[in-house]
Amino acid sequence: MATNATIETLLNRRSIRKFKDEPIDDDATATLETVAQHAASSQFLNDWSAIRVSDPAIKARLAEIGNQPYIATAPLLYVFVIDEHRNAHIAQRKGIDPTSDEFHLKYSYRFTQAQNDAVLALHAMETAAYSLGLGGVILGSLLNDIPALIDLLNLPEYTYPVLGLALGKPDQEPTLKPRMPRSMQFFDNTYPADDDGMLEQLPDFDNKVHQYYDLRQTDRPVDAFSDQIASVSRQGVSGKTLLDKAAAQGFQLDK
Amino acid sequence: MATNATIETLLNRRSIRKFKDEPIDDDATATLETVAQHAASSQFLNDWSAIRVSDPAIKARLAEIGNQPYIATAPLLYVFVIDEHRNAHIAQRKGIDPTSDEFHLKYSYRFTQAQNDAVLALHAMETAAYSLGLGGVILGSLLNDIPALIDLLNLPEYTYPVLGLALGKPDQEPTLKPRMPRSMQFFDNTYPADDDGMLEQLPDFDNKVHQYYDLRQTDRPVDAFSDQIASVSRQGVSGKTLLDKAAAQGFQLDK
Repeated sequence: MATNATIETLLNRRSIRKFKDEPIDDDATATLETVAQHAASSQFLNDWSAIRVSDPAIKARLAEIGNQPYIATAPLLYVFVIDEHRNAHIAQRKGIDPTSDEFHLKYSYRFTQAQNDAVLALHAMETAAYSLGLGGVILGSLLNDIPALIDLLNLPEYTYPVLGLALGKPDQEPTLKPRMPRSMQFFDNTYPADDDGMLEQLPDFDNKVHQYYDLRQTDRPVDAFSDQIASVSRQGVSGKTLLDKAAAQGFQLDK
Repeated sequence: MATNATIETLLNRRSIRKFKDEPIDDDATATLETVAQHAASSQFLNDWSAIRVSDPAIKARLAEIGNQPYIATAPLLYVFVIDEHRNAHIAQRKGIDPTSDEFHLKYSYRFTQAQNDAVLALHAMETAAYSLGLGGVILGSLLNDIPALIDLLNLPEYTYPVLGLALGKPDQEPTLKPRMPRSMQFFDNTYPADDDGMLEQLPDFDNKVHQYYDLRQTDRPVDAFSDQIASVSRQGVSGKTLLDKAAAQGFQLDK
């Protein structure tokens, strides 16, 4: 297989949830943030921002919201947000009233693309961090309580939280999680019509996943992939609703 | 600034819209797809897929939908999709009826996280491609006509298109686009309350952007950043509405 240092970094990526108690220096931080800014930006709108959280009280509160104590221990911690607030202000200076129909950046197409752009930037930062020997974990769990997160970070109108990223020097060595067979995830020209055919290799994959040990629970192998899907399918998601929360921030996703 | 080959690759990323008429070999393709699979996956659901488009007729149609002729010329072309269809089928085998309230993967939280995961995978692939000397462009424009795209790729219930990625050997050398000052995009601990203070460096950035020449329009510099924001703000987005299109695919974003 074609390879190089970048590809090795990407193939060996594992979530790191335990960090050495050592700060990340300003030079590395500047590099990571600059790299994030160089990811692609849809229509060059640069419609994301990131909050760099260093205040221990805010870190502790984020750990509560995410229900993951290690969040508070991350030497470098970011929350990436959709940001049409900055653009609303710029547009206003150009005579556009953001509350009017003329401000299309608050509608669903830009919301979606801004979310994508925030994730591109976050992944560029994550990849650069791993290339420097750091490690980390992406925090979807911060969306457990979206209003609390918005309140904590003072996120204004036309912004919306996307994901957190906790980074630091790794103090654990998790093994690599198995991935599903490529043919189950990459399809030729159209989505396959044969559902059962697509899942032909699922039993093998189920077994491989079941043989994997997670550092968070070292006393027993993790559930088979199918069992994980069933269990997450049944998990309640109350309070995580996108639509009303986005509307409260000024976005109109029905347009 | 801290650097290495990976960081250089990420800092030098430019969209490539003109490709040499040379195929990407199977080995490189396998590498890129495997790298994509190794990006982080929220709750390990692997809830994205990608359609690898090689059929010239489908490529041509995608170029029409995206209104970008170069899409048809990309040696390697993908459409990344949110995929809870595969998981619905797996859940069904475990006794869960996807049309029932028990199948939470169709609600907004998982839709959002699946979209994020698709973008993480896409960016991992893009970065690996650039590290191999390839180049490409991310295609938000495929969402110009979401129903046509869904129809063309036979995207079933509980799937939804996210972004396209066109890759190939670069046949152009665009200059690097300026990025906004880091202090305009990264904030300490909370979102800044002072809108005007945040935009203090905007005139400088406006000037820098206005000095940039885009290969797509080499006869004049591009508009200042503020003018681009105003112009995109006023662009209609009809037909790109998320909510009804996602509902037509079985997702319930109000839950």
